[in-house]
Amino acid sequence: MPKKVRIALDAMGGDVGASVVIPGAAISLTRHPDTEFLLFGDRSVIEPQLAKHPALKAVSSVIHTDVAVSMHDKPSQALRRGRKTSSMWLAIDAVKKGQADVAISAGNTGALVAMARFCLRMLNGIDRPALAAIWPTKHAKAVVLDLGATIGGDARHLVALAAMGSAMASVLFDKARPTVGLLNIGVEEMKGHEEIREAGEMLRAMNLPQLDYIGFVEGDGIGKGAADVIVTEGYSGNIALKAAEGSVRQMMDLLRSAIEASWLSRIGYVLARSAFRSLREKLDPRNYNGSVVLGLNGIVVKSHGGTDADGFAYAVDVGYEMAKYDLLNKINQMLKSDGGTLVPASATQEAVS
Amino acid sequence: MPKKVRIALDAMGGDVGASVVIPGAAISLTRHPDTEFLLFGDRSVIEPQLAKHPALKAVSSVIHTDVAVSMHDKPSQALRRGRKTSSMWLAIDAVKKGQADVAISAGNTGALVAMARFCLRMLNGIDRPALAAIWPTKHAKAVVLDLGATIGGDARHLVALAAMGSAMASVLFDKARPTVGLLNIGVEEMKGHEEIREAGEMLRAMNLPQLDYIGFVEGDGIGKGAADVIVTEGYSGNIALKAAEGSVRQMMDLLRSAIEASWLSRIGYVLARSAFRSLREKLDPRNYNGSVVLGLNGIVVKSHGGTDADGFAYAVDVGYEMAKYDLLNKINQMLKSDGGTLVPASATQEAVS
Repeated sequence: MPKKVRIALDAMGGDVGASVVIPGAAISLTRHPDTEFLLFGDRSVIEPQLAKHPALKAVSSVIHTDVAVSMHDKPSQALRRGRKTSSMWLAIDAVKKGQADVAISAGNTGALVAMARFCLRMLNGIDRPALAAIWPTKHAKAVVLDLGATIGGDARHLVALAAMGSAMASVLFDKARPTVGLLNIGVEEMKGHEEIREAGEMLRAMNLPQLDYIGFVEGDGIGKGAADVIVTEGYSGNIALKAAEGSVRQMMDLLRSAIEASWLSRIGYVLARSAFRSLREKLDPRNYNGSVVLGLNGIVVKSHGGTDADGFAYAVDVGYEMAKYDLLNKINQMLKSDGGTLVPASATQEAVS
Repeated sequence: MPKKVRIALDAMGGDVGASVVIPGAAISLTRHPDTEFLLFGDRSVIEPQLAKHPALKAVSSVIHTDVAVSMHDKPSQALRRGRKTSSMWLAIDAVKKGQADVAISAGNTGALVAMARFCLRMLNGIDRPALAAIWPTKHAKAVVLDLGATIGGDARHLVALAAMGSAMASVLFDKARPTVGLLNIGVEEMKGHEEIREAGEMLRAMNLPQLDYIGFVEGDGIGKGAADVIVTEGYSGNIALKAAEGSVRQMMDLLRSAIEASWLSRIGYVLARSAFRSLREKLDPRNYNGSVVLGLNGIVVKSHGGTDADGFAYAVDVGYEMAKYDLLNKINQMLKSDGGTLVPASATQEAVS
């Protein structure tokens, strides 16, 4: 019997907590029956939910804790109050202890990244963590990183993002050599993004067997599917993602009010219902839920805090695939195969105190 | 009789040149009859176009030049080949010489910003130029800057952007005290954007009578209309704009193919035609054409290179309003009223050699 994928869930994370996390896990389990769950959180809240999902209950263990990180805790507060005790910490710690293959939380991003970094430590050769999301493109999907785990960064940081992002894309899209583009602006000869140019030169020179560097991609190239992996530092990545999400939502709102403005349009809407349904489906943020915290000695997946059970199930799917197809090993192989550019001889395990 | 607004046009700029620029100017003239034009470019190309628009012809002077900056010239090439001779340079120079109130070009952005900076010089107290665009929001429009004229920048640069952007918004939106937000990401306590925090503290401390600083705005806040003016440095501004434009285009494409997928949807589309027309109209990039190069001793407007006559007309409208309602004076007043934060005592005119 092949090994099961063991998933640690922060059952208290997100705006709602267990009433989304548990049904979400149950949905994902129907798609991946070779899963086992460790559920961290308040037993009195988890068990009534679990009772509704016998198949999930049969493959789950509940580990009780009273402590939960709030959506509003700052990372430092979360670490102070929730280290070693909170459901978020315990889920991550299960990965560290080898009890789980991946930890998933819908809790607050800053706290999750800080706790994951503190608990799991950085991979040898990676300085700072990144958050990688799945972005819908014209014909498929792309991995975009960093979405804000780390602000700024030099060429070496961008190259590390390229390596980690392509490992994630190879798992998600089942491609041996995903294409990678560096996010840049079109205006030539402007000063200030030397690190992007330098990263491009490094990637070209390294010519890694696991990724196909295709050059610069502009902001509108992400959605066109210009590359499987789009690399940028965390500030601009976060701004790009939110600006794009914002305009899709804005357009949906405009479309809705335009249609409601006349009876004829409303009838038209009813007739074209299947088209609108397919559009909504394709752009539904729930289908792209599940960002991966990269750069750590362990896999941690972040779900949107405000998602529902269907959305959370997608984040569990992402965690399942990352664990099943061994993201961490893929990243480590890449870090070793790069001829020392990413991991200089002097690099040592980061000393987090 | 009130003074006319004198507009200098680079008639050769853009993908197409005079056959878009001249009809575009003619359209804008019908909206603002108190305009005069100086048309710079190849007389043999301009005059046949002008012959089709007698009203425009009556208020235009043609100044011939054979030299045109190409869409592919790098800024340094454009300056080398086109300084003092090209239609782009001559249009800008007309502003410098006081022959025109504003220069407008659909030529390439890098060349235009470089030439404008070289010819007009920076305003006293402003170090580097910015490009400000008009962004459609849920209920109205917002000014977003910088879209890529300058990459990076410290807190003082961001405060200067806030001052210039709010002067532009006050003209465009006819508001005495536009609201201003600094683009930022939601994750707390992350390192690296100290300059944004510092800029926020400066804006709060200055409490300028001409702008109402409201704090940080996330990427999805732009389209929600969180502020009249959204301030960020040029790299992330450019990425945000293109990512948003890209997702709108992507969504329109998805909608189109979803509708074409069934007969029923097509009939629905016909019935709901007015709704789709209103959506297209609201999101039509032509309606938001015309970015302003800010920070110079003179007003320069950049039109999209690939727009049509209707789109170019909007860029001319923007130029008209900026000149008519005295953008430059508004910026200068702001620079003087800030108590020296923007213009330190030691600041002198930038010496461009």
